[in-house]
Amino acid sequence: MSSCTKQPNVITCKAMVAWEAGKELVMEEVQVSPPQPHEIRVKVVSTSLCRSEITAWETQAIFPRIFGHEASGIVESVGEGVTEFVEGDHVLTVFTGECKTCRHCASVSSFSEYTVVHSGCAVKVSPHAPLEKICLLSCGVAAGLGAAWNVADISKGSIVVIFGLGTVGLAVAQGAKLRGASRIIGVETNPEKHEKAKIFGVTEFLNPKDFKEPIQQVIKRISGGGADYSFECIGDTEMVAAALQSCCDGWGLTVTLGVPKVKPEIAAHYSAFLSGKTLKGTLFGGWKPKSDLPSLVEKYMNEEIQIDEFITHNLPFEDINTAFSLMREGKCLRCVIHMPK
Amino acid sequence: MSSCTKQPNVITCKAMVAWEAGKELVMEEVQVSPPQPHEIRVKVVSTSLCRSEITAWETQAIFPRIFGHEASGIVESVGEGVTEFVEGDHVLTVFTGECKTCRHCASVSSFSEYTVVHSGCAVKVSPHAPLEKICLLSCGVAAGLGAAWNVADISKGSIVVIFGLGTVGLAVAQGAKLRGASRIIGVETNPEKHEKAKIFGVTEFLNPKDFKEPIQQVIKRISGGGADYSFECIGDTEMVAAALQSCCDGWGLTVTLGVPKVKPEIAAHYSAFLSGKTLKGTLFGGWKPKSDLPSLVEKYMNEEIQIDEFITHNLPFEDINTAFSLMREGKCLRCVIHMPK
Repeated sequence: MSSCTKQPNVITCKAMVAWEAGKELVMEEVQVSPPQPHEIRVKVVSTSLCRSEITAWETQAIFPRIFGHEASGIVESVGEGVTEFVEGDHVLTVFTGECKTCRHCASVSSFSEYTVVHSGCAVKVSPHAPLEKICLLSCGVAAGLGAAWNVADISKGSIVVIFGLGTVGLAVAQGAKLRGASRIIGVETNPEKHEKAKIFGVTEFLNPKDFKEPIQQVIKRISGGGADYSFECIGDTEMVAAALQSCCDGWGLTVTLGVPKVKPEIAAHYSAFLSGKTLKGTLFGGWKPKSDLPSLVEKYMNEEIQIDEFITHNLPFEDINTAFSLMREGKCLRCVIHMPK
Repeated sequence: MSSCTKQPNVITCKAMVAWEAGKELVMEEVQVSPPQPHEIRVKVVSTSLCRSEITAWETQAIFPRIFGHEASGIVESVGEGVTEFVEGDHVLTVFTGECKTCRHCASVSSFSEYTVVHSGCAVKVSPHAPLEKICLLSCGVAAGLGAAWNVADISKGSIVVIFGLGTVGLAVAQGAKLRGASRIIGVETNPEKHEKAKIFGVTEFLNPKDFKEPIQQVIKRISGGGADYSFECIGDTEMVAAALQSCCDGWGLTVTLGVPKVKPEIAAHYSAFLSGKTLKGTLFGGWKPKSDLPSLVEKYMNEEIQIDEFITHNLPFEDINTAFSLMREGKCLRCVIHMPK
């Protein structure tokens, strides 16, 4: 939202504002400032709902607030000094920027018809790619694929275990499948995820509720001593230790991708590490957004990766609270929110 | 110690027996059995005292016991089926075997004139290498060098932080120096380690007692956002989180090598991982003993690595308790125990 509404060229548009933790978003009129130097103003076309928004909405203290970070759009205007973008460029917004001048920059609110972002937080993509699909590459799907390819660097024939079969977990599965993993074991308490999981390459489905023994023990047993790679995609720090224990000694690698919903401390017995295991974290799958996202879009256009299958719901902007409910209840993978034309 | 003393060819010799936790070792006569199939009997020549022995001696519950695992010796006899060794071969014992038939095998007691080990737990080395020096490569020095080279794979020009400047930490420093690290920051509460640390390449010495702010904050500040690599070589799980926090976001890598003396749980805030950091563990520096140790011995013979400088004390076998005291009080790096000829 703008702090200088008197400036010319301010756009008045609709945004979904969170006024209070966990309370329904309310459609409000907001004024979006023109872009400042090195910023661009983007007309949001599609935005999808990432699980981390639910966590932020339920637990964070600063309101009012416009959430949203997984989005695609079209550049409406550019600020002084911006040479990378021109009006009409198709872009993905990225929460982890690559401005090449600072180590970190991030500021995106996509639950609004217009948004202003630092030019480091947008990536130009092919104008031929469908914006209502590729918005998923702006966070979750790219994060999962990158975790499998860049962070873990999964090798052919390996055994992979994935804790949590939401969008991120299933994107890891897709990445593992494309790398030729021999077994992709999905751990998930929601049996409704089973069918969808098969599409993305999950070969075995374990529901911890079906076992009396700890799930890591089950995994050790069925994998002959532990998986080569395990991925924590739930956002439950308690599961990181289980994921570590599910890996084999020597070269076992655990990647944690989840944003914790409750306990922020990760704890594990030192012996897991002394036996040679590795715990690696990642927020955006090791991708450099500007350098790498355009090629992921290309891969989608060439049908080398699947995105459409992650989209379980398409909703108009005014129904964004339905998306919040579906996500909170675990009844969707990705809900794409279509902004008014 | 033998369980079948009536068998021919039993050797009666001296060993230093720990009868009780933390109590002085006592020289006793023991019977060492002949080697069983796939075992070899080794006349120990030199054995050095590793810090982990102190921890085991102070905290473990099973006594009587003959400690010792960092050792060199000469093969005295071989069991049935052993083709790799013959009488007279010079060997290093290794606590982490490479028998190539099981994932783990380890059984070494070197505080004895003779010891029987599985043939997988010994490595044949050049008969020209001085056994009273290279015994250090059987554990600590190799572990540190391997952590720097194999586990972290330190790159030229990088910034390295080492928590704990005992033998393992200084071996990491040596490894980092040989890889061309630009800065090697040593964190150590004992100022007596300072001079020795310079020899192994430590360029800056930080004593946490000299600062009011947490040492990880100091490191972040002086390194412009964090080191590229940090190593926890103290055996203090509390320091693992500090080591993680001392690394930069994105690609920071922490390697934990220490065997914890007290708290076995490693805990760290998840954000350290989400920002892209990695925590890796290792017990023996990622070396495959049989495949790799002979070349480390060669490097020593070619003066490419230093070992002699780690040896602060040389003691006869009967004075092994002096070595335990020196190690417990932090007054030595490596004490080499020389067995009777």
